[in-house]
Amino acid sequence: MTQVSRSLRLTKALALLEQLEAGAPSKVTANLNAFHPDAAEILLGFAFSDVVSRDGIDLKTREMLTVAMLSAMGTAPGQLEFHIRAALNNGISRYEIVEIILQSAVYAGVPAAMNAISAAQEAFIEVT
Amino acid sequence: MTQVSRSLRLTKALALLEQLEAGAPSKVTANLNAFHPDAAEILLGFAFSDVVSRDGIDLKTREMLTVAMLSAMGTAPGQLEFHIRAALNNGISRYEIVEIILQSAVYAGVPAAMNAISAAQEAFIEVT
Amino acid sequence: MTQVSRSLRLTKALALLEQLEAGAPSKVTANLNAFHPDAAEILLGFAFSDVVSRDGIDLKTREMLTVAMLSAMGTAPGQLEFHIRAALNNGISRYEIVEIILQSAVYAGVPAAMNAISAAQEAFIEVT
Amino acid sequence: MTQVSRSLRLTKALALLEQLEAGAPSKVTANLNAFHPDAAEILLGFAFSDVVSRDGIDLKTREMLTVAMLSAMGTAPGQLEFHIRAALNNGISRYEIVEIILQSAVYAGVPAAMNAISAAQEAFIEVT
Amino acid sequence: MTQVSRSLRLTKALALLEQLEAGAPSKVTANLNAFHPDAAEILLGFAFSDVVSRDGIDLKTREMLTVAMLSAMGTAPGQLEFHIRAALNNGISRYEIVEIILQSAVYAGVPAAMNAISAAQEAFIEVT
Amino acid sequence: MTQVSRSLRLTKALALLEQLEAGAPSKVTANLNAFHPDAAEILLGFAFSDVVSRDGIDLKTREMLTVAMLSAMGTAPGQLEFHIRAALNNGISRYEIVEIILQSAVYAGVPAAMNAISAAQEAFIEVT
Repeated sequence: MTQVSRSLRLTKALALLEQLEAGAPSKVTANLNAFHPDAAEILLGFAFSDVVSRDGIDLKTREMLTVAMLSAMGTAPGQLEFHIRAALNNGISRYEIVEIILQSAVYAGVPAAMNAISAAQEAFIEVT
Repeated sequence: MTQVSRSLRLTKALALLEQLEAGAPSKVTANLNAFHPDAAEILLGFAFSDVVSRDGIDLKTREMLTVAMLSAMGTAPGQLEFHIRAALNNGISRYEIVEIILQSAVYAGVPAAMNAISAAQEAFIEVT
Repeated sequence: MTQVSRSLRLTKALALLEQLEAGAPSKVTANLNAFHPDAAEILLGFAFSDVVSRDGIDLKTREMLTVAMLSAMGTAPGQLEFHIRAALNNGISRYEIVEIILQSAVYAGVPAAMNAISAAQEAFIEVT
Repeated sequence: MTQVSRSLRLTKALALLEQLEAGAPSKVTANLNAFHPDAAEILLGFAFSDVVSRDGIDLKTREMLTVAMLSAMGTAPGQLEFHIRAALNNGISRYEIVEIILQSAVYAGVPAAMNAISAAQEAFIEVT
Repeated sequence: MTQVSRSLRLTKALALLEQLEAGAPSKVTANLNAFHPDAAEILLGFAFSDVVSRDGIDLKTREMLTVAMLSAMGTAPGQLEFHIRAALNNGISRYEIVEIILQSAVYAGVPAAMNAISAAQEAFIEVT
Repeated sequence: MTQVSRSLRLTKALALLEQLEAGAPSKVTANLNAFHPDAAEILLGFAFSDVVSRDGIDLKTREMLTVAMLSAMGTAPGQLEFHIRAALNNGISRYEIVEIILQSAVYAGVPAAMNAISAAQEAFIEVT
């Protein structure tokens, strides 16, 4: 990739991240740049430019899918809370979050759902 | 629970399972009844009557969430294939399945997505 | 389910939860009710009324199984600590907890066991 | 470890493995020896001599714990089937296996239980 | 990304895949193209062009890391077998594969190692 | 195992642990001894004497493998941070840690890598 195409890819990723939560790009890129100058391009470019910004499923539904996956996996509670906030910021209601998390109990067990409930309650406080 | 309420719960669950895939209830209940007479009520009743048939998220979206969770977890390939077929049977396009699976690569890694692609290709053959 | 059968199911679940740890029902239901009015019925009803209160395996052995599963899965440390306390409250000795956790090292690896040791040491302080 | 202590450790492990399923030691050691001469000592010695043969929990209960852990983890279906057979060989009833697997649905989700039911049905055929 | 930069990214990825196993690119891309025309670019481009082909760690060591991760995760046995073959094709000895898998028993448990041994034994037959 | 061979096994394990991080043996054994007198021998003896101290792969590479496995599994963040410190203490550069973690995004997903980045940033502060 040339520097130019890299930059466009990251720019597109950060625009989507800003849509998920206002102010997130500066925090996340500061964190990633302190780790390695290529980390933001590789991780955010893949996540948000290559994949999540694709057509075919709208962003609202994609955030529901992300909340479902992170609830089921149970290994990234901080990011689950972020994506619950992002979901609320993008038109998903608290009631829909509740339904996603109850459904995660079916597929990943009650403790997975209980952990997701904790994340949701934090997110519900922060996004009003 | 009385026998009556148990029966209604299972009946409701099996009606939803039939909607996911025609003919599935008889196969699944035969399998579960051979295991234990209460298994269908407990497992299907919880999954499909208590949770998946709830209002608030439509069935099409719920099946997208299920495909997302099973793709990300990676521990139930047979059930992932079943739910991809169920998704196709309930108005989700192959293109949407593709997008869900590509998104699972972001959150659970490329091997999870590769496994889900194999399951999808089986499902795409069976549901025409 | 009618309101009546729901109530019986939840009542049975909360009675078992009280047996696991005195005072737990009010804390857990307050938390779940703040999330959604149906959450306690769905999650606790399934866990404790539909399944854990069944005959065939006594509660002491069931709590050993739960500690084993949560130690091996490694994704719910708070609930692992709760169930270690519940195990101690229901006739399981600290020595048996030790053995379960050592066995989890065989099936889920040494880090899983190390995490469970941390949870156990917290539980050992709280349950005297 | 001297050759002598290594041999005692492996001998003890294989005696326990024989108790789990008659004839298992020759099959398992042939498989492991073809991989590396130290593999049986390291893996079986740790599992069965260092841990599972310890006092404090009887073998029957330990096999129940193992079935619970492998059902919940969902990543080793062949070994889950082996340990269900081993459980049946050591005084655990089919009814107890059913209860363990239903309990795994609570802590690891319905698909985990469905997979374990498949493993159990294979084991129920083989152990009569 | 323009069509040109996409093509370079995929070309670089496929060159690395060919180095992992001769003939793999045509099989893998046929599989992915049948799924979606963008899948190869997104999944292989990310895996092999964005990340695995980076400087800083040589390919031999990277394949050791991949075998370690897939052994520990336990959810992608087919890809574990592929990467064991790829490791053998890139200067890693069978003895090193043995050591990686024994180490996975420490961090992910004995069943994870047993599954990886099965994958290795298949790979050892195919790569001579 | 006689008391003598046990002692040699643990001694060897603690020597390796000291090499991973100066001062670690006293902290870890104090923690494990408070849990059970046999825990250090069983867990550390298996991990560090039986496996990680084996020939065939050098310690530096083994720590890279451990960081890879713990990053991919995502269930032991404290131990991941410890092993990143141990890696830095044994000749692995920060740049190599970066590459391992970026590679974990491919095989276990972006959230796994983000969690590992957090662990690495803690470790980078502590090991200077």
